[in-house]
Amino acid sequence: MNDIICRTWLPYLDADIPVDLITPADVAVFELELGCDRLGGAIPELRPDPAMGESYHIFTENGKPVISGGRTGILYGAYAYMESLAAGEAIPAGVQQPFYKLRMLDCWDNADGSVERGYSGRSLWFEGGGFQWDPRRIRQLGRILASAGINVLCVNNVNVHPEAEGLIEDAGLPGLAAFAEALRPFGVRLMVSVSFAQPMRHGIPTADPLDAAAQKWWADRADAVWKAVPDLAGFLVKADSEHNPGPFTYGRSHAEGANMLARAIAPHGGVLIWRAFVYNCMQDWRDTVTDRPMAAFNTYAPLDGRFDDNVILQVKHGPFDFQVREPVSPTLLAMPHTKLALELQLAQEYTGQQVDLYAMNPMWRALGEDLPPEQVMAVAAVSNLGRDDNFTGHPFAAVNLYGYGQYAWNPRVDPAAVLRRWARLTYALPRGQEDALVGMLLDSRTVYEKYTAPLGLCWMVNPGGHYGPSPWGYEFSLWGTYNRADRNAVGIDRTAGGTGYVLQYPEALRRKYESPDTCPDKLLLFFHRVRYDHVMADGRTLIQRIYDDHFEGVEAAEAMAAALAGLDLPEPDRSEAARRMEAQLKNAREWRDVVNTFFHRLSGAADEKGRRIYD
Amino acid sequence: MNDIICRTWLPYLDADIPVDLITPADVAVFELELGCDRLGGAIPELRPDPAMGESYHIFTENGKPVISGGRTGILYGAYAYMESLAAGEAIPAGVQQPFYKLRMLDCWDNADGSVERGYSGRSLWFEGGGFQWDPRRIRQLGRILASAGINVLCVNNVNVHPEAEGLIEDAGLPGLAAFAEALRPFGVRLMVSVSFAQPMRHGIPTADPLDAAAQKWWADRADAVWKAVPDLAGFLVKADSEHNPGPFTYGRSHAEGANMLARAIAPHGGVLIWRAFVYNCMQDWRDTVTDRPMAAFNTYAPLDGRFDDNVILQVKHGPFDFQVREPVSPTLLAMPHTKLALELQLAQEYTGQQVDLYAMNPMWRALGEDLPPEQVMAVAAVSNLGRDDNFTGHPFAAVNLYGYGQYAWNPRVDPAAVLRRWARLTYALPRGQEDALVGMLLDSRTVYEKYTAPLGLCWMVNPGGHYGPSPWGYEFSLWGTYNRADRNAVGIDRTAGGTGYVLQYPEALRRKYESPDTCPDKLLLFFHRVRYDHVMADGRTLIQRIYDDHFEGVEAAEAMAAALAGLDLPEPDRSEAARRMEAQLKNAREWRDVVNTFFHRLSGAADEKGRRIYD
Repeated sequence: MNDIICRTWLPYLDADIPVDLITPADVAVFELELGCDRLGGAIPELRPDPAMGESYHIFTENGKPVISGGRTGILYGAYAYMESLAAGEAIPAGVQQPFYKLRMLDCWDNADGSVERGYSGRSLWFEGGGFQWDPRRIRQLGRILASAGINVLCVNNVNVHPEAEGLIEDAGLPGLAAFAEALRPFGVRLMVSVSFAQPMRHGIPTADPLDAAAQKWWADRADAVWKAVPDLAGFLVKADSEHNPGPFTYGRSHAEGANMLARAIAPHGGVLIWRAFVYNCMQDWRDTVTDRPMAAFNTYAPLDGRFDDNVILQVKHGPFDFQVREPVSPTLLAMPHTKLALELQLAQEYTGQQVDLYAMNPMWRALGEDLPPEQVMAVAAVSNLGRDDNFTGHPFAAVNLYGYGQYAWNPRVDPAAVLRRWARLTYALPRGQEDALVGMLLDSRTVYEKYTAPLGLCWMVNPGGHYGPSPWGYEFSLWGTYNRADRNAVGIDRTAGGTGYVLQYPEALRRKYESPDTCPDKLLLFFHRVRYDHVMADGRTLIQRIYDDHFEGVEAAEAMAAALAGLDLPEPDRSEAARRMEAQLKNAREWRDVVNTFFHRLSGAADEKGRRIYD
Repeated sequence: MNDIICRTWLPYLDADIPVDLITPADVAVFELELGCDRLGGAIPELRPDPAMGESYHIFTENGKPVISGGRTGILYGAYAYMESLAAGEAIPAGVQQPFYKLRMLDCWDNADGSVERGYSGRSLWFEGGGFQWDPRRIRQLGRILASAGINVLCVNNVNVHPEAEGLIEDAGLPGLAAFAEALRPFGVRLMVSVSFAQPMRHGIPTADPLDAAAQKWWADRADAVWKAVPDLAGFLVKADSEHNPGPFTYGRSHAEGANMLARAIAPHGGVLIWRAFVYNCMQDWRDTVTDRPMAAFNTYAPLDGRFDDNVILQVKHGPFDFQVREPVSPTLLAMPHTKLALELQLAQEYTGQQVDLYAMNPMWRALGEDLPPEQVMAVAAVSNLGRDDNFTGHPFAAVNLYGYGQYAWNPRVDPAAVLRRWARLTYALPRGQEDALVGMLLDSRTVYEKYTAPLGLCWMVNPGGHYGPSPWGYEFSLWGTYNRADRNAVGIDRTAGGTGYVLQYPEALRRKYESPDTCPDKLLLFFHRVRYDHVMADGRTLIQRIYDDHFEGVEAAEAMAAALAGLDLPEPDRSEAARRMEAQLKNAREWRDVVNTFFHRLSGAADEKGRRIYD
């Protein structure tokens, strides 16, 4: 529907952004006039200060509001000002600057318009093999990104299909330049995912990073690309991963591969993002020595200090792949002499696919307990955006985009405060209802976790689609994803006596995880192989804990459904959220019954409370 | 490759069939001149006798060979004559006539050129939304079909996608007519799969079989179709099955649905094939009352005698869906007043996908023990043909097409003799090698069965693709495909005390199957839920039998591989068979290990012989 202006968390910005605005300051002026009118606030004076960059300062002078800020900072300040007005909160005091300079959104959009792991419709900017977009919606997107404080958009899937290689070829550059221009007023710079083997599509016999011809091809390409898009942020590469080409083909290290590309783009100020998602995706399930979570550390930790200055190694937050519960990736703690970016996933691939509720700020905040925010210098998040009217499929899934921006600006921000501000900005519900909505969001991960794979076990999802339960769907696969459940026990021993994974951690974490007694319950089955009759700290057996969690998870989902029904949400959000909640309940019951039945068939243990477990 | 003339079992017919042959007699003359030259035999005199129809008689008169036969019979006689020459066997004595008058090949070819469950490449006659073929290959196809004695080809998938609905619409009729013309010289008539809801694509508000407008639409359509193709054999319908539309939508029975269509085509002499493949494909795995194998009987047996005279109910040989081992479908034994067609599947969907060897004649012959051939009046087989140079993917898979023809002509034919004749005709190997090849084919089903799902358990395949093991891949699905294994036992009790499925059989079969003591071992887990420690007739426990079968299955496959390596096959068959055998061995080992590990994890039972079972 073309006449919808998406509310997201900006319902007061209920008019389109004109096409003729060029700079962030232009946008700030327009947005403030519109928003302050709707919110009934004074329009601040804008005082640009180029030296401030992305920072801003909102203060009062002679009783009148003033926003000073750098080129993009002034726009961030404008949104922050209106947000405070809309939420009825105090204006942030002092100079505000983002904690991370690079705040990326990685979009797995394909040139054909599909979105890998996208749950919000088709691509907002690709269709039919290249760029094609609705200018109105792209300006809405710019507004959303700027108000969230996101400053880099990687436009295409890390799995670079042949069509997408065209983005940086001569024929593709005008499209890339036009899209960069469309988002430039919002302080958003583009990035492009490239294929390591791309020179070979252009007559170069090898993509060997030490080959002069390959190097020259990339240098020439970078010249052309940056000529078309002078402020391009950089290239992103997924190499030697899940069948993508990479330096291993030529017996070169990933430092050699990354540095070659980095040198091609360095003259233009480009950044080379190198993804650390490397593992053996052709593992034999009979092989109990290879342990997939150990792969990234084994590949990258020895290369610490060997990457060029404009290389950033992008590492997923956990050692697997965005599962519901994983420990921090040890790679993030092992490379003090390497620039690291933390990779998160807003697209709910394994976490409910924007049907089930799953608010992520609590998870990210908890991550900070093991990973000091200073340990990385950038953040990237896999986008949850798409062409759906509300941009995110589930109207509440917008909380993760908003919350990601808040986290990128301040990784120590209180998750509850973020969720509440999003709820307040989006719906302005009566206090009791707002509490209910915030409570629902705050609990959502715990609830989802309870009814899905138990205690850090991971991968009990349906293969391929990754929605719904299949306890052994990935058990005999090539993907390194095994739970090795049998009639007595479940899980993989990742201690020193097992695969040794735990040894990849610094001392304190190693100690915490290596004993079942100190390992947090929720990660117990990630680190340990445990008998069903193992008695846990609270006196329950493992099997009883599994049963309890699954029954409780569904009960909690049912309570959420009841709470949702009591919210006076505007349409179409009310219907949309209700419809998805119904699907979530079905999913939760399916997970509960399949997981309980699976473990009951194996263990033979009865539920102490006599609840129904199917045969 | 366009210059290949496929050998199949007719290597002596090494030249193309000219385009200008119109009648089967024309083809017979050409083929006999070519074949007798290559084989060094006398060219028989042809003596057409229209009254003989498909029958033929080969005899000697004044020392010279003569073939008398009907319009198509004369061509069948020509191929039979050459086959005897080529195989060095006696010419069949007396008048030969096919046991089944209708000998169909059901092709699951889609108008876009893909083939559902096809393992031999794309469609031979569809591409880009409609008919498109290489005339040379279609004449080769005609030769193959006629020499196998197959007389009806259903050209399109029983799942009728919208494009294929066009086949019987005005714009599609010239293509259909041209294809009918191309195969007419070979005595092959076409059939078309139609969608029950097709009138609704043409402005008719309902497809209700009792609605006059729907009836008229079909009658008009039949007029147009038979005007274009006067010898069209009929229509085939898959209704109310796996999301296809059907009479249930309107609260009508399948007799009402079938008869409506039958009446539309009866004036043209058309036959209406109605598939009996109806079951609940949205079952809840928690539901232990519904038992999928019971569905067809429950739907159709009460309708016995209520179908029109030109309706044939096409029933799969087993109650599930072409699994490796199933009992005979009770529906085939329950409808004495209905014309029945037996449906077989040459495409090896669940039986190795033309990678693993699986020769079917022994299975069909064994079927005759429970199903007297007279019980049905027609046979249909899902085609294993495709655009691959050798037509069947695996060069040996041609044995199933050849063997199907032999079976359709004489369901009591000795399987070993069929396999030997195919081997001799195709490769003319030295006797010892021929014995090895025939032995391999004769054992192939037993070997495949041993390393896959045990003792009639079915459905332990990877979901979707159906190749390779996944013991619980279909366990929590909607498809009614459960083994309900737990730590003590496996299988579903289908006796009177269980789901009651066994009660659908006539007395003798019911008695045989209802007790684990009289039920054949190979069907034990189809009919019974059995503890792993159950002691079988030979003194082994069930679990030990499972282990033994799986180790023995792989050993037998390895022996087959060794035997194959010793055959002096012509290229490319030698390389192609070797390559596929390597894949079969990998598949066999994967099945062995996954199945053994699955049951070992559940049962905890050690292998008595101490062989390696992975954790």
